[in-house]
Amino acid sequence: MIPRYSRPEMVAIWSPESKFRIWYDIEAHACDAQADLGVIPKESAAAVWKAKDVEFDVARIDEIEAVTKHDVIAFLTHLAEIIGNEEARFVHQGMTSSDVLDTCFNVQLVKAADLLIADTEKLLAALKRRAEEHKYTIRIGRSHGIHAEPTTMGLTFARFYAEMDRNLNRLKKARKEIATGAISGAVGTFANIDPAVEEHVCAKLGLEIEPISTQVIPRDRHAAFFAALGVVASSIENVSTEIRHMQRTEVLEAEEFFSKGQKGSSAMPHKRNPVLTENLTGLARLVRMAVVPAMENVALWHERDISHSSVERNIGPDATITLDFALARLTMVIENLVIYPDNMIANMNKFSGLVHSQRVLLALTQKGVSREDSYKLVQRNAMRVWEQGADFMTELKNDADVMAVMSEAEIEEKFDLEYHTKHVDTIFGRVFKG
Amino acid sequence: MIPRYSRPEMVAIWSPESKFRIWYDIEAHACDAQADLGVIPKESAAAVWKAKDVEFDVARIDEIEAVTKHDVIAFLTHLAEIIGNEEARFVHQGMTSSDVLDTCFNVQLVKAADLLIADTEKLLAALKRRAEEHKYTIRIGRSHGIHAEPTTMGLTFARFYAEMDRNLNRLKKARKEIATGAISGAVGTFANIDPAVEEHVCAKLGLEIEPISTQVIPRDRHAAFFAALGVVASSIENVSTEIRHMQRTEVLEAEEFFSKGQKGSSAMPHKRNPVLTENLTGLARLVRMAVVPAMENVALWHERDISHSSVERNIGPDATITLDFALARLTMVIENLVIYPDNMIANMNKFSGLVHSQRVLLALTQKGVSREDSYKLVQRNAMRVWEQGADFMTELKNDADVMAVMSEAEIEEKFDLEYHTKHVDTIFGRVFKG
Amino acid sequence: MIPRYSRPEMVAIWSPESKFRIWYDIEAHACDAQADLGVIPKESAAAVWKAKDVEFDVARIDEIEAVTKHDVIAFLTHLAEIIGNEEARFVHQGMTSSDVLDTCFNVQLVKAADLLIADTEKLLAALKRRAEEHKYTIRIGRSHGIHAEPTTMGLTFARFYAEMDRNLNRLKKARKEIATGAISGAVGTFANIDPAVEEHVCAKLGLEIEPISTQVIPRDRHAAFFAALGVVASSIENVSTEIRHMQRTEVLEAEEFFSKGQKGSSAMPHKRNPVLTENLTGLARLVRMAVVPAMENVALWHERDISHSSVERNIGPDATITLDFALARLTMVIENLVIYPDNMIANMNKFSGLVHSQRVLLALTQKGVSREDSYKLVQRNAMRVWEQGADFMTELKNDADVMAVMSEAEIEEKFDLEYHTKHVDTIFGRVFKG
Amino acid sequence: MIPRYSRPEMVAIWSPESKFRIWYDIEAHACDAQADLGVIPKESAAAVWKAKDVEFDVARIDEIEAVTKHDVIAFLTHLAEIIGNEEARFVHQGMTSSDVLDTCFNVQLVKAADLLIADTEKLLAALKRRAEEHKYTIRIGRSHGIHAEPTTMGLTFARFYAEMDRNLNRLKKARKEIATGAISGAVGTFANIDPAVEEHVCAKLGLEIEPISTQVIPRDRHAAFFAALGVVASSIENVSTEIRHMQRTEVLEAEEFFSKGQKGSSAMPHKRNPVLTENLTGLARLVRMAVVPAMENVALWHERDISHSSVERNIGPDATITLDFALARLTMVIENLVIYPDNMIANMNKFSGLVHSQRVLLALTQKGVSREDSYKLVQRNAMRVWEQGADFMTELKNDADVMAVMSEAEIEEKFDLEYHTKHVDTIFGRVFKG
Repeated sequence: MIPRYSRPEMVAIWSPESKFRIWYDIEAHACDAQADLGVIPKESAAAVWKAKDVEFDVARIDEIEAVTKHDVIAFLTHLAEIIGNEEARFVHQGMTSSDVLDTCFNVQLVKAADLLIADTEKLLAALKRRAEEHKYTIRIGRSHGIHAEPTTMGLTFARFYAEMDRNLNRLKKARKEIATGAISGAVGTFANIDPAVEEHVCAKLGLEIEPISTQVIPRDRHAAFFAALGVVASSIENVSTEIRHMQRTEVLEAEEFFSKGQKGSSAMPHKRNPVLTENLTGLARLVRMAVVPAMENVALWHERDISHSSVERNIGPDATITLDFALARLTMVIENLVIYPDNMIANMNKFSGLVHSQRVLLALTQKGVSREDSYKLVQRNAMRVWEQGADFMTELKNDADVMAVMSEAEIEEKFDLEYHTKHVDTIFGRVFKG
Repeated sequence: MIPRYSRPEMVAIWSPESKFRIWYDIEAHACDAQADLGVIPKESAAAVWKAKDVEFDVARIDEIEAVTKHDVIAFLTHLAEIIGNEEARFVHQGMTSSDVLDTCFNVQLVKAADLLIADTEKLLAALKRRAEEHKYTIRIGRSHGIHAEPTTMGLTFARFYAEMDRNLNRLKKARKEIATGAISGAVGTFANIDPAVEEHVCAKLGLEIEPISTQVIPRDRHAAFFAALGVVASSIENVSTEIRHMQRTEVLEAEEFFSKGQKGSSAMPHKRNPVLTENLTGLARLVRMAVVPAMENVALWHERDISHSSVERNIGPDATITLDFALARLTMVIENLVIYPDNMIANMNKFSGLVHSQRVLLALTQKGVSREDSYKLVQRNAMRVWEQGADFMTELKNDADVMAVMSEAEIEEKFDLEYHTKHVDTIFGRVFKG
Repeated sequence: MIPRYSRPEMVAIWSPESKFRIWYDIEAHACDAQADLGVIPKESAAAVWKAKDVEFDVARIDEIEAVTKHDVIAFLTHLAEIIGNEEARFVHQGMTSSDVLDTCFNVQLVKAADLLIADTEKLLAALKRRAEEHKYTIRIGRSHGIHAEPTTMGLTFARFYAEMDRNLNRLKKARKEIATGAISGAVGTFANIDPAVEEHVCAKLGLEIEPISTQVIPRDRHAAFFAALGVVASSIENVSTEIRHMQRTEVLEAEEFFSKGQKGSSAMPHKRNPVLTENLTGLARLVRMAVVPAMENVALWHERDISHSSVERNIGPDATITLDFALARLTMVIENLVIYPDNMIANMNKFSGLVHSQRVLLALTQKGVSREDSYKLVQRNAMRVWEQGADFMTELKNDADVMAVMSEAEIEEKFDLEYHTKHVDTIFGRVFKG
Repeated sequence: MIPRYSRPEMVAIWSPESKFRIWYDIEAHACDAQADLGVIPKESAAAVWKAKDVEFDVARIDEIEAVTKHDVIAFLTHLAEIIGNEEARFVHQGMTSSDVLDTCFNVQLVKAADLLIADTEKLLAALKRRAEEHKYTIRIGRSHGIHAEPTTMGLTFARFYAEMDRNLNRLKKARKEIATGAISGAVGTFANIDPAVEEHVCAKLGLEIEPISTQVIPRDRHAAFFAALGVVASSIENVSTEIRHMQRTEVLEAEEFFSKGQKGSSAMPHKRNPVLTENLTGLARLVRMAVVPAMENVALWHERDISHSSVERNIGPDATITLDFALARLTMVIENLVIYPDNMIANMNKFSGLVHSQRVLLALTQKGVSREDSYKLVQRNAMRVWEQGADFMTELKNDADVMAVMSEAEIEEKFDLEYHTKHVDTIFGRVFKG
């Protein structure tokens, strides 16, 4: 976790304080269920709730762990210091450490997912607003970085909206993947604890029960979770790459918002660099790097080995904190992106009229010229525009072979930009269904 | 694609013949829609169907491509050779190559997903049968590779079932991710082709329309698809790792089926190596390696660049063919896995009675001994078993401090194996809901 | 392996014919050494060489393997068919299959490395030639995609040369990593075969002996090998990305060579797409994806498990064939890259004179103006260029505060392009040492 | 960076204090060189050294950065607060931020590499000591997890020594890869700063000059560096996997040292889990995950984009800190590993005598029995050992077909364990050359 790429709400989910609070909730709810089953005294279960509003002393727990080398025992020892050894006797009874650790980890991932889902919804709102704003702002569409046919800036925003909407859906499914808890004992047989305890604790924590666990919750769930984050990160890179291209000096169709106090470079004062989207490109790599180790974590030995743990101590917080920051930063970039419609038109006209060559080609075909011949007719005029800076419409009008089949008016009609935007509304209708 | 790790049905999906047939279907259906719209003559559209049952000449198409350096043009040229240049004039009108290529790729991925889904269903059937067969076959559960508490072989199969059932669900969602088609023209604006053509073609091919495309279908879909395959592969590694552990000489709780003609090793005739599951471990790595490049493919420049194409030419076939083979091989391994219940019991009893130490610990606590003291009592007797080969029950009965709070009968009750299997039926009920 | 991204010489290394020929060489040389040691009869060793020029029947070997399920036994059986069962009795004596398989794999990797080294040397020659050709061809240097200060196209080629020269060095080291052989028996103890056999075979094959092997050659070597390929691939992506940027319509400082017959797009005849470098970007991802599984292959169980094998059957050929193709394709792109020096100048002058702002800033500082004030002076004039299309030099000359400390001549001197190229020769001297 | 997996010396390299100290050194040495060139006043250069022993106020620098949004400017502003604005005027002249940032990053990586090299040397010493200690401690070698032929524990340690020795070599090369510095200005042309400054600063910092840089040092160097760390991590996983296997209950050939205060599990007091090597398995995944993003960082746009920066802020510290911790932990594990030679012998004899089957097979062949027949003879006796728990030697002696060609003494000789260790000394001589 890099402080400059993190936001407090997500960081808080991963604090020791949050973790111990969740551990406590699990233990306290488990005691209630055990008391209901008559396994432990009702008063002992009630006594555990004395610590409900007590702040746990993280330093003290660390101190105990330094001796016991076991985090859950350290916590339970500290809890006993608060509620009294006698009352604490029944806490954790029949449970294994992983019951607490794994259920807690999933609670944290669920909370993280909730933030990521909210982040994505804000990003969607920004994208939708900008899409509508620039619904008919004409710009050239490019394939291979080369001018192709006109499109609109609104369609660009709309396709990012659609992509992020799919990501919203993926995040919701990812949340569901890890929204389970397990209180099933040392190897998952419930030998020492009734399944009713698991049911009670999970219900209280808003989790599904894990239908079958071993000592741990199966890690294919977490692999699927982090894989989803990797896809979202890749989409962030996609949007960022578009903006970086738009801001490059020769294109200049958009710029990230440039705050007053900000200095772009120590030496080149005029430079306005797309540093936010470049940064997002890097952050995407960071989120994505969690995917492979999460998949390598799936194959644990028998009923569990602990190799996954160190990996998750890292990627749990890091991937979610980084993605949360990235989604928020991208939302800010989208909201404030400065769009230059005039430059879009100027760029499109760099090779005068050439973007309409596809339409002319089609028109010739429809006039009965063979595909091969049409292609040659268009190509020879296009080359003069490309190489000599000629105007495509003028060239066509001067080409006897073209004029043999098309009128001037017909040619001019092929250069009408509205031709390209006639289905924008249909596409918007598909994307923004709500 | 490595021939020895492939099966013909999946390989066929990726053959040039299959690809050209799908291209043809797309073009022919598009002509129908164009004719319905009055854009091209009905007879021309009808003429295209003359090639419905003609086998395309792959070598001829390759020959044309060697000249034109363009695969779709090569195909269209060959199609014109079949149906006649005049009738072929209107084929592909208003479309761009990617309309064909991307829609075709998704059709192939959908077909591949269907096979993978069927594979997984077969694997599930095998796992379920073996789970029921060994529902109460006792074996020791292990954490960290160390004996923990008893469980059953049925539970092992059942948890693999549950994991693969989640994978079935992931594959179905992955299929949905890429079950879209796009016929939207050079930059996705439908400038030269009506959206109705896309709707018609997609409906005929069993695809959803892509709500908004550029020149290409957005690659976050494919990233999500290959990520799902990576999770499935990781689960295959998980199951394989369990079997490899079970087969190691010192454990010998199971063996892969050993066919009569098969020689284990050129030099050690007695060796029965778990080569199938070792192989599956490697195949899992191969499938998983498609995930990162698929994610790197998401950020295409503007309305498309072609960097994704070479990646997909590889991972499209390779990841699906390998996973199909791996799922089938794993199914065969599970179906034929030789289980040794006697060895399971012998292994469990290696340190006589020690696996019951957790129960004794709990019993002491329930008798009013403090957690710390109970721990010490259990530990000192357990260490004699561990270090001197003593019998745990005997040691406990000889320990005055233990006997001060527990009777012999109470101790013996703690060594009852049925204690550990009492919830197996509950767990089976959760897993095998149907 | 995708045929369109492969070249015959590298493909040949990985053919069954090549493999069996290497197996044969290993077995035959081993027999010689065994005969020298007196372990097997001299005549038997000599008899093996009868097959020296015989072409092995791959189909026949496959047929035998289908029965024995063991590739080395299948080969030995076929060899016995050629040289006679009696003479073949002593072949492979004391050896284990992996002695043959692993040593063969390394021979193949060494051959592959030799081709990759030769490829890189050709690429270096092309880069050097183009660097010298454009040593003083001025273009704007860009950071963040934004104009910074002038540089030269020669420096661009020179830095790619330096990078590829480092890659040449990495490939040579990678070759050394895997240029070992092992003939050490079932667990690497030489129990059944004298170390002298290993020494003899390795000497004959141009390999070092593996100082200590198990059943297999340790896989950290292969991990290092494939990691090196991944770095080379990343550099290919780096060069390709530069060219793709140069070719985009708004920049147009270079174009990939466009052959006469080639059609850029079925619908837009004027388009010249940088498809080769886009393709190379994808191929880089393909090579790179071998790195992680190669690293996952390192941790084999005890003296070996066979999980690495399926991985290497794929990445061995695929990564080397793809990288060989990519290096050759990049060489061809570099050799034929069309450079547009006029466009470079035009691009640089897009914001008239602004690229010299850094020099003006420094000059003001040197005249005694504070860093803060200098910055403000430059910034206010630069903004007029940026926003209103003014000329930077003119603005400076009209700025009284600037003129208070600088003369017109001093300002003009700051716009001298030779100022930026004065150390080009020094840099070339560092890069092209030979 | 996870505190529990980090050691102070490596953490210190990455502290803000260390970073600013290196920045200062770069700036101060650059001033000296500039003064020698007559570019700035000697007194100004001298004045910079006033801050030589001043502790920089990190909080103050952060405060300034919060306003300027630029870290190097913030530092320079703070430096000016220390040495006076007048004297500070000439600091950083002609330089660009990346000259400082990139050279600093490489200084940090060099320091990190030095620690990793020292770590590896300590690990080597531990492995060598244990190898010598157990040079002739017999254990069974295993392929596929199945007993193969005898080997020694010393050979196991020796092969890990050889692997780590190769890693030492890789780390030294990796150090060399990134031991360069660059002070070459905004696009690497030295337009505003003489190459002599770079030479002076690099010499003072113990770096090579970067022969050709852009705004940044080329990132293929860093990709190669992190790839090397990934290989080392994979070897750590390899050694850890061996130990985890040795410690599993059924094998118990070794145990990680178990300190007195440590509790293995809250519920199963007898359990001694190989948690350190399981943890190392996870840490290996964490180090390895830096490899792919480091490779994705290579392709920067033109003379630089800043996408690499956020990645490196993470993987720079995290990968080196984790690997340093892991190497030290593994050294501790190796030094204290408890070896159980008696259990090794007991395991080997699980299937009485079966490990000698390979020798018997060879002996039969040498007696003139055909390969096929020898195989069958060995197999039928081996199967009785395998299936009925018979003793292999006894079975052979009872097999008339065997006795027809071998004497009892000859059979007994095949069961001599020294046969397998006769070349151990040779192998040790190859591995421990020094």
